[in-house]
Amino acid sequence: MKPALLLTAGSLAWAKPSGYKIDYNRAPPNLSTLANYSLFETWRPRAHVLPPFGQIGDPCMHYTDPKTGLFHVGWLHLGAAGATTDDLVTYHDLNPDGAPFIRAGGTNDPIAVFDGSVIPSGIGGKPTLLYTSVSYLPIQWTINYTRGSETQSLAVSKDGGRNFTKLQQGPVIPSPPFALNVTGFRDPYVFQNSRLDSLLDSEPGTWYNVISGGVHGKGPSMFLYRQYDLEFQYWEYLGQWWHEKANSTWGEGLWAGRLDEEGYNSKGEVFATLGAEWSLGPIVPEVSDFREMLWAAGNVSLEDGDVKFSPTMVGKLDWGHSAYAAAGKVLPSSSKASSKSGAPDRFISYVWLTGDYYGTLKQFPTQQQNWTGSLLLPRELSVGKISNVVDNELAREKGSWRVISRETLSNLTKKESFAEEGRTISKPGSTAFKRHPKSKFYVLKTSISFPSSARNSNLKAGFQILASEHESTTIYYQFSNETVLIDRSKTSAAASTTSDIDSRNEAGRLRLFDVVEKGEKRIETLDLTIVVDNSIVEIHANDRFSLSTWARSWYSDSTEIRFFHDGEGEVTFGDVSIYEGLFDAWPERKR
Amino acid sequence: MKPALLLTAGSLAWAKPSGYKIDYNRAPPNLSTLANYSLFETWRPRAHVLPPFGQIGDPCMHYTDPKTGLFHVGWLHLGAAGATTDDLVTYHDLNPDGAPFIRAGGTNDPIAVFDGSVIPSGIGGKPTLLYTSVSYLPIQWTINYTRGSETQSLAVSKDGGRNFTKLQQGPVIPSPPFALNVTGFRDPYVFQNSRLDSLLDSEPGTWYNVISGGVHGKGPSMFLYRQYDLEFQYWEYLGQWWHEKANSTWGEGLWAGRLDEEGYNSKGEVFATLGAEWSLGPIVPEVSDFREMLWAAGNVSLEDGDVKFSPTMVGKLDWGHSAYAAAGKVLPSSSKASSKSGAPDRFISYVWLTGDYYGTLKQFPTQQQNWTGSLLLPRELSVGKISNVVDNELAREKGSWRVISRETLSNLTKKESFAEEGRTISKPGSTAFKRHPKSKFYVLKTSISFPSSARNSNLKAGFQILASEHESTTIYYQFSNETVLIDRSKTSAAASTTSDIDSRNEAGRLRLFDVVEKGEKRIETLDLTIVVDNSIVEIHANDRFSLSTWARSWYSDSTEIRFFHDGEGEVTFGDVSIYEGLFDAWPERKR
Repeated sequence: MKPALLLTAGSLAWAKPSGYKIDYNRAPPNLSTLANYSLFETWRPRAHVLPPFGQIGDPCMHYTDPKTGLFHVGWLHLGAAGATTDDLVTYHDLNPDGAPFIRAGGTNDPIAVFDGSVIPSGIGGKPTLLYTSVSYLPIQWTINYTRGSETQSLAVSKDGGRNFTKLQQGPVIPSPPFALNVTGFRDPYVFQNSRLDSLLDSEPGTWYNVISGGVHGKGPSMFLYRQYDLEFQYWEYLGQWWHEKANSTWGEGLWAGRLDEEGYNSKGEVFATLGAEWSLGPIVPEVSDFREMLWAAGNVSLEDGDVKFSPTMVGKLDWGHSAYAAAGKVLPSSSKASSKSGAPDRFISYVWLTGDYYGTLKQFPTQQQNWTGSLLLPRELSVGKISNVVDNELAREKGSWRVISRETLSNLTKKESFAEEGRTISKPGSTAFKRHPKSKFYVLKTSISFPSSARNSNLKAGFQILASEHESTTIYYQFSNETVLIDRSKTSAAASTTSDIDSRNEAGRLRLFDVVEKGEKRIETLDLTIVVDNSIVEIHANDRFSLSTWARSWYSDSTEIRFFHDGEGEVTFGDVSIYEGLFDAWPERKR
Repeated sequence: MKPALLLTAGSLAWAKPSGYKIDYNRAPPNLSTLANYSLFETWRPRAHVLPPFGQIGDPCMHYTDPKTGLFHVGWLHLGAAGATTDDLVTYHDLNPDGAPFIRAGGTNDPIAVFDGSVIPSGIGGKPTLLYTSVSYLPIQWTINYTRGSETQSLAVSKDGGRNFTKLQQGPVIPSPPFALNVTGFRDPYVFQNSRLDSLLDSEPGTWYNVISGGVHGKGPSMFLYRQYDLEFQYWEYLGQWWHEKANSTWGEGLWAGRLDEEGYNSKGEVFATLGAEWSLGPIVPEVSDFREMLWAAGNVSLEDGDVKFSPTMVGKLDWGHSAYAAAGKVLPSSSKASSKSGAPDRFISYVWLTGDYYGTLKQFPTQQQNWTGSLLLPRELSVGKISNVVDNELAREKGSWRVISRETLSNLTKKESFAEEGRTISKPGSTAFKRHPKSKFYVLKTSISFPSSARNSNLKAGFQILASEHESTTIYYQFSNETVLIDRSKTSAAASTTSDIDSRNEAGRLRLFDVVEKGEKRIETLDLTIVVDNSIVEIHANDRFSLSTWARSWYSDSTEIRFFHDGEGEVTFGDVSIYEGLFDAWPERKR
């Protein structure tokens, strides 16, 4: 569901209002009373992917142009818009003012353009977009599905991706499988897979296509299709290659409830990222209480002639409540970015961070800010393995493994700005750093060690960031429920003057395993990378945990960092590196 | 193809121009120079079905409302419009000014509404229309088919047929069968058939649906579907139940080339009426040189699990070049019309008579006339049998059997106005009737007998009608090619002053069989019924032949009737009955 799309800000320009000055050294007024555009810079990130102005929806339609080697990153915005990158660091808008490369309003999509994905060498060798063309709304899993709401259509770009021109014909997938009462039928994801080719006796290099949805009363499904002709006109339905029962609980618990298989097959794994929407009963029409951004890795096999995807691992791509709708794409080693960094073929994924909680924070000063939402930093997905894990009960459940893309991370942390010396703290309280960043744009890297006695204790340890006399955002790990938390109750002075500045806590579960080091068993170190990009905070831990959210501090001087300790027990903080400044992902944009 | 629909006159009113008088006693001017609407009455029929003004396209969407017993006759007009009848004689517009009960312009049909048919007790027990919703044009068998041009959608009437409200959802048949390169996919025809029920093990009373079209390079086809659910949401595809090879020649020749089976099965016959478009090579894109209105009767059977329709008889529903696109419907004995006349269940069909030769006569004074085209008189289709046919070579080919509906015909011929005595004529020339009709609204009934020597002779015999010093339309039978002809070369004085007053001849083949009467073999009598409804002339012969066309006489006194004879041989004309006045099919319309 893309409520964001329906609230898109339209044609607001991104010019700053002239002659208007906001004082960030005084308490904020009710921000909704300010002039339009006056808050454009206030919380604007620098290193993240987002349009020049207006609302961003789901990331989608990424591809590497085989002609240029450029990676194209796409997102929903007045249709869908995008940018290119040759290094996963800086981006270049495909069109002036970030104008879309495809818009709704055609015969197949009078209402909306939803997610799609791109065959880099498609019709006539040109980048070819298979996307969800929307004819009726609303669509949501809690209400009856309007037949024909979502169909899948083609568009082709002949100008390097600046415009995708819709084929003047009907949809290529005009309906869900026959007589299936779906809850949704959207976001076609095209891919090639040699394991499927051999299983299904397809021509090598055949394209497949997974459409996400579900069946009323039966639960979520992914519908698998196979390319049928060279013009991508027809897609052969191969069945529901992944179906979960309604009320499946994967995604809950520590990593996932379904991880009962040991190990993994290093060949032929398939990655999928997927969004799940769910509610606690009683279900309210058109409302999802919860959304989760999941990932899965698994094997494909034939069962009674049908292809099935069997997840071996399922996890959360990001634990943030506002993080959703990831879209990834294989980034080939031949791409410009990978040529430079020497990276192999990999799967790069962008996660959406909704700026108005899926359209529900309607009082947020959106007109004043003139932009809403962002993508999170690109992530590399791969299946990892923790060495030396003690094979006890705790390690039976394997997790997700991911990092910020190597190029992005190395550029963010190119040069240490300063370091805060590590220390051991054993009493509750917060301890200010000797030196603070000058700005709200930096990366904090460190590790925290805990004694074995910490397990099952009430110990909490971490940092306060974006802190000052009036504000602070507290990030900490607590053993009681093996959780990384972000306490946003004091994050923003604006929350007390302005409606819908979200100050709810964020939390994600992370199990620190017992490891053996030099013959001694101890608790795995908590390795923390915290990216602060003005109001966006991304917490990455141990290459397998991410939690991202908004932290909208108001005061100019809310740049302090403090060690944080609570409960009983000793915590050893390693040296803390601060890399200030980040990078400007949009060198060509005027501010 | 419905070019007519695209040329629909829009919102022209049908008011007569005031203070303007045309003199029908003098030679006509160039009619295109006259004021708009000035020719409204000139050629307007009285007993035929047509809208109050504007263009009429295909007849379609007929049904009997089970609540009222009224028969609803529909036709394409600014979408589709219609009227009700309780006697097949007079009609009552469903909406003021003949406004449509469905219009194009919805999400499924942004471009056009094409033919459809009605399930009388459909969704919620209401009349439910399954129609072709059009998203892309042009569509024609000579050019590539635009995928998704034609889909099949539902609309329901809750106000007695005055409006059919489209379901707010996508099409129920969103595409042709998978990966089939169709030439067309339209005009869904719904029906019930107990023979199909038992063959296919369906619930009794199941609805079926035949969609007309063809496959590029393979020829015309009819696609059979079966109702899948009580809401008529899904239709199960059962295959191409009737497929002919490209360049099939049925419809050519005498009746049809395929009539190699003797006799027929009196139970479970299925009637189909169908239009065929064809051209002589080389094929010009978007042009059909010829159209033929065919009918077929046959059996259904299972072949290798697939239902097949096997025509036992195929013929022409009307031989007129302008007659096309028939649409019929079962008229139950319980209908008001049948209750009154005591008729059993029967199949009533209306044929379209294009007024501008499928949109090609662009110079016709359409604005002056302010209406274009009509339906022909309703016909009853049934399988007939000629008694006492000599079983010689001539009788090997069986024909089509049909008549004007019994109610219509009996009302047209209720009271003889006058009779012209029969006579035998053996010399070429025309012989004026002693008395002529006062108007151009009448029925002529007679029979003509020929000696056996007439066969293979150059004998021609018939009538001149709408005749005067300046004009005449000659209708005659000629043995040389067993044809009924209408010579229109002198039909209209306007043809010499005004472009696109069609004066081409019309012809249809009719074999007069050898019959045995009182032990003697002789040529079957030619039984003629000629309906003259101002400019519409319908010739019906021997309950198995129809030829209808336009005869647009100009002069007021072009009402003479003459016996016509040409070639060598004796012809015996029976007494000729003239029934003048016809009836006004539209008592509620103001002129």
